[in-house]
Amino acid sequence: MDLKELRNEIDRLDTQIQQLFERRMDIVKAVAAYKKEHDLPVLHAGRENEVLDKIAAASRPEYRDGSRALFTAVMDISKCSQSQLIQKSNPYLEQSSPFVPAAAHTVACQGVLGAYSHIAARRLFQDECLHFYPHFEDVFQAVVSGDADFGVLPVENSNAGSVMDVYELLKRYNIYIARRVKIKVEHCLAALPGTNFSEIQEVYSHEQAVRQCSSFLKEHQLQTRIYSNTAASAELVAHSRPDEHLGVICSELAAQRNGLRILKRGIANIDENYTRFIVISKTPRHSQDDDLISISFSLPHTVGSLYRMLTKFYVYNINMEKIESMPIGNKNFDVMFYLDFTGNLTEQNVTALLNDLSASLPQFKYLGSYKEI
Amino acid sequence: MDLKELRNEIDRLDTQIQQLFERRMDIVKAVAAYKKEHDLPVLHAGRENEVLDKIAAASRPEYRDGSRALFTAVMDISKCSQSQLIQKSNPYLEQSSPFVPAAAHTVACQGVLGAYSHIAARRLFQDECLHFYPHFEDVFQAVVSGDADFGVLPVENSNAGSVMDVYELLKRYNIYIARRVKIKVEHCLAALPGTNFSEIQEVYSHEQAVRQCSSFLKEHQLQTRIYSNTAASAELVAHSRPDEHLGVICSELAAQRNGLRILKRGIANIDENYTRFIVISKTPRHSQDDDLISISFSLPHTVGSLYRMLTKFYVYNINMEKIESMPIGNKNFDVMFYLDFTGNLTEQNVTALLNDLSASLPQFKYLGSYKEI
Repeated sequence: MDLKELRNEIDRLDTQIQQLFERRMDIVKAVAAYKKEHDLPVLHAGRENEVLDKIAAASRPEYRDGSRALFTAVMDISKCSQSQLIQKSNPYLEQSSPFVPAAAHTVACQGVLGAYSHIAARRLFQDECLHFYPHFEDVFQAVVSGDADFGVLPVENSNAGSVMDVYELLKRYNIYIARRVKIKVEHCLAALPGTNFSEIQEVYSHEQAVRQCSSFLKEHQLQTRIYSNTAASAELVAHSRPDEHLGVICSELAAQRNGLRILKRGIANIDENYTRFIVISKTPRHSQDDDLISISFSLPHTVGSLYRMLTKFYVYNINMEKIESMPIGNKNFDVMFYLDFTGNLTEQNVTALLNDLSASLPQFKYLGSYKEI
Repeated sequence: MDLKELRNEIDRLDTQIQQLFERRMDIVKAVAAYKKEHDLPVLHAGRENEVLDKIAAASRPEYRDGSRALFTAVMDISKCSQSQLIQKSNPYLEQSSPFVPAAAHTVACQGVLGAYSHIAARRLFQDECLHFYPHFEDVFQAVVSGDADFGVLPVENSNAGSVMDVYELLKRYNIYIARRVKIKVEHCLAALPGTNFSEIQEVYSHEQAVRQCSSFLKEHQLQTRIYSNTAASAELVAHSRPDEHLGVICSELAAQRNGLRILKRGIANIDENYTRFIVISKTPRHSQDDDLISISFSLPHTVGSLYRMLTKFYVYNINMEKIESMPIGNKNFDVMFYLDFTGNLTEQNVTALLNDLSASLPQFKYLGSYKEI
């Protein structure tokens, strides 16, 4: 046979496989209906292995691994397709209420006035609503206790990665993400009014900001002092004596808020520096134009458990945006997974996926529906 | 039909699907042989979408998503099975030499004498070989320049997670992991000889160690001072005056090395606290009893790219031990993946997997073969 004939033969075989697969799906549907009618449990423990054992026994040795993988996929896809056909309710959608930032009276922010979290919070909330707390957990507690309607926290920087402490708190507190805000981190050099650039002797800032502006600092031979955060550094410089000639690397907002003069802009080594913040809420929220959903879960200790979970995303045509793992703190270095995917709670495939995952994954947790601004 | 009849029907369909699948694999093999004979490129761009489009067109609407997923799996599994059948050489195995710790003259360690990295290094190397460097990157540079035969660095703590700075350096330097060492982190309280527990007024240690012993410190109302690391804290206390009554939380080794007296053992809040260290080498290493392999890569921006990559692990029956993502630092929060899997370079499936992954994944990097002690 030449290439064309071989490909035609593959197409013929595919047509037959497809027809048999669809026939198989029909029978699986009939099994589900029979079980429902006779009040039998949906899952038959051992049936899956029974099928795989039969396949392995009948397979030619060189194709055994492939056949096993194929029929694992057949059964997983079959389960998803059945879920798709059954119109189920979406408990997460039902429990959600709209997110209305304008209705907020009190919003808890981690950080201080002029911090990048302040810039993120101002994108959604009025300045007079904002209350600042020193620790991430303070913000969670303010939201859970009802002291604040919402909270604002950093979750990820495009260079430094995820803020693991916030992920750890997402595991421990029952809260929901209601919005995500992406902020461009833009550092400037500021000082007391009247201080000139050439007079600056020492520059205060957070360790990460100093690292991000290292080329500029080196070029101008500026000494640095590491401080707890950029906005607190601005406050420190605002309270310094003019003859100390101190500089600070901070946001423009922090400089303005502390009455400082901006001496240089665009001083970072790299231009691409973004931080994502989340807005958290005590109750789940949902809007028609949300396009992101976050969940967390652990995986069973079985071969290919991550692969088989991702089969569901593939069948449902749902795109994973991010997957992150975090240690649970045991001897085996076991982890929890945090996963963001694209979709809206009103979509049928999203409902089917969430129902499937919550029924099959250990420690499944729904973390919210939102969009990024 | 009753349940038994329905299941028998599924089994009959499965047998037919399997036979057609194996026939399909034979034809795919013939295509590969034809292409080789006629010197044609192995991959035919667009052929995959052509197959999926035909399937979608022929599918019943309710099974369209399932059919598309099935034939993606059929083609991915088929590719793996073909790779398995072709005996290929393993370039990573060929370039590797044995790892012989006893032959090391100089070993670079991050940290100071008595640090947990020192404890890890002593599990493999003689004390007189060890040289200590303050920064992670110093260790990479010592190994790359040939100043040191090997380097020892922490990669993961069971509570705090991965050491992202070391992962970032693994991306930038061409080095290989030759061994992994797991150390139980056991903090003790130590002080100058002659100082009693009741006299201790202040305790020095690293921030993480202080957090890990917070219950003990609170119970005994001990003030704490945060210092750069546990072993350096021990040195500081060793050089303090007896009338300062300083204590330190550090390893037993650090206490001994600094001539301190151990006052309390087992003072951590949780007993399960482990750190993994890697031994790095300028050239790839391999031993017959290695059972872990590390790689890094990025994923193409296509739907289900992680899922489809994991199909390979499933077909080859290779277990993923860990997957970790790290931002590459762009606006889209794109990531690099770090993956550890179980296997030995001499195994045929491992060879097939590595050849497949290196040919299909952007920025694929082989990071070494090793075992954990």
